[in-house]
Amino acid sequence: MEKLSIIKIGGNIIEDEISLNKFLKLFSNLKGNKILVHGGGKRATHIASKLGIESKMVKGRRVTDPETLEVITMVYGGLVNKNVVAKLQALGTDAIGLTGADINSIQSDKRPVKDIDFGFVGDVKKVASKSINKLLKADFTPVFCAITHDGNGQLLNTNADTIASKIAVGMSEIYDTSIYYCFELNGVLEDFNDKESIIKKINSENYQKLLKEGIISDGMIPKLDNCFDALNSGVQKVHIGNTSMLTKENNIFTTITL
Amino acid sequence: MEKLSIIKIGGNIIEDEISLNKFLKLFSNLKGNKILVHGGGKRATHIASKLGIESKMVKGRRVTDPETLEVITMVYGGLVNKNVVAKLQALGTDAIGLTGADINSIQSDKRPVKDIDFGFVGDVKKVASKSINKLLKADFTPVFCAITHDGNGQLLNTNADTIASKIAVGMSEIYDTSIYYCFELNGVLEDFNDKESIIKKINSENYQKLLKEGIISDGMIPKLDNCFDALNSGVQKVHIGNTSMLTKENNIFTTITL
Repeated sequence: MEKLSIIKIGGNIIEDEISLNKFLKLFSNLKGNKILVHGGGKRATHIASKLGIESKMVKGRRVTDPETLEVITMVYGGLVNKNVVAKLQALGTDAIGLTGADINSIQSDKRPVKDIDFGFVGDVKKVASKSINKLLKADFTPVFCAITHDGNGQLLNTNADTIASKIAVGMSEIYDTSIYYCFELNGVLEDFNDKESIIKKINSENYQKLLKEGIISDGMIPKLDNCFDALNSGVQKVHIGNTSMLTKENNIFTTITL
Repeated sequence: MEKLSIIKIGGNIIEDEISLNKFLKLFSNLKGNKILVHGGGKRATHIASKLGIESKMVKGRRVTDPETLEVITMVYGGLVNKNVVAKLQALGTDAIGLTGADINSIQSDKRPVKDIDFGFVGDVKKVASKSINKLLKADFTPVFCAITHDGNGQLLNTNADTIASKIAVGMSEIYDTSIYYCFELNGVLEDFNDKESIIKKINSENYQKLLKEGIISDGMIPKLDNCFDALNSGVQKVHIGNTSMLTKENNIFTTITL
């Protein structure tokens, strides 16, 4: 099986021109099949506020009313995605920017209303891995933003981490697929006060131990549960660290396997 | 040679939900290879004004300062393009939304400053017909918005009529290519006060006569010159009329050939 790398970057990289340019160079130099997934975060909040639209967050998730969905479509699908594509083209990477509506690549269900109405938020239902593979086979590099669709003409705001993981699961039918989650830290920390205390390897066995001992807690638990879900669904490896894990020089990051 | 239809729609269709839905149904039902090109027009002006950005027009063209380019990237590349793609997917057309940066499809030069500095406006230099054809061959339907790039990471605002015509010229190396310019009128009028006085056929011969007699004047001249440029560069036919020219029932529109 050929290899495929899915790289996810968050708002902290997107919002800082220098970090973004540095990252895109690393991404461009990465050999082999690759897919980029990006969030957009604060940029959308900023433009929404300029347009007089208040951003409502519940449990760290954006409540997406129709006006907010418009802003997200503009910022994630337009401003951020197309500038990333133009920058990648300048670096010689033949990028193509996508939402989940493009080539029907990611279909979602609008999240059902229970305690909270999240509005136009999508829970991923289906990834069109064969269609995405047509782009890879044509030597294009897909760049996904955090938008999906319901197949009935409705765009839906969708968490970028989830998009990366669902695409990886879908593509693992065809490729030996790894995910790289790029964030501020160098990896999962053993001691939150010591940024150098990277846990280099996590597997299902020592994960239970790390949980029991309280070393992994709070916000990291859903993130890691999400990683194990992906691994249990066919993804080969998940890496968590800062963007320099894409280089061969840096081997200090966290690798998660079953 | 296989046939390819390039259909261009303007702001009047984009801005009216009912017209847009009606058009997209016609476009979806159109058989054979097809490409959609859309403008964005007033939507961008509206959102720019909400963001406190003044829209400057010189000779009917938008002056594109950095802030205006951001709005155009958001509105054309995000809001309009991605909603059109989602609607087409709902109609069973496997659409893919693109700017000229995606798959390096349309490269432009930033317009040189002479009397007027138009800002970030692009004059089309190169259409990557082979790359666009890879999408057609994969059974995807490209949907282009009016944005190109300079190959050095800079997005550029570009006239949608020109984009349609340049794509058509590029693709005519591979396909027997026709352009359909959809606008408010049923075609080129013999008498501007009589909306039914459609000139059904224009060719290089009677065009000179129509010009001499003053029947074609003003704003139609650059439009038709542009059509003849495309025809002289390999495009087979150019059609001008309202969207119903895409149906077999309507044969009242203007067809331009060499």
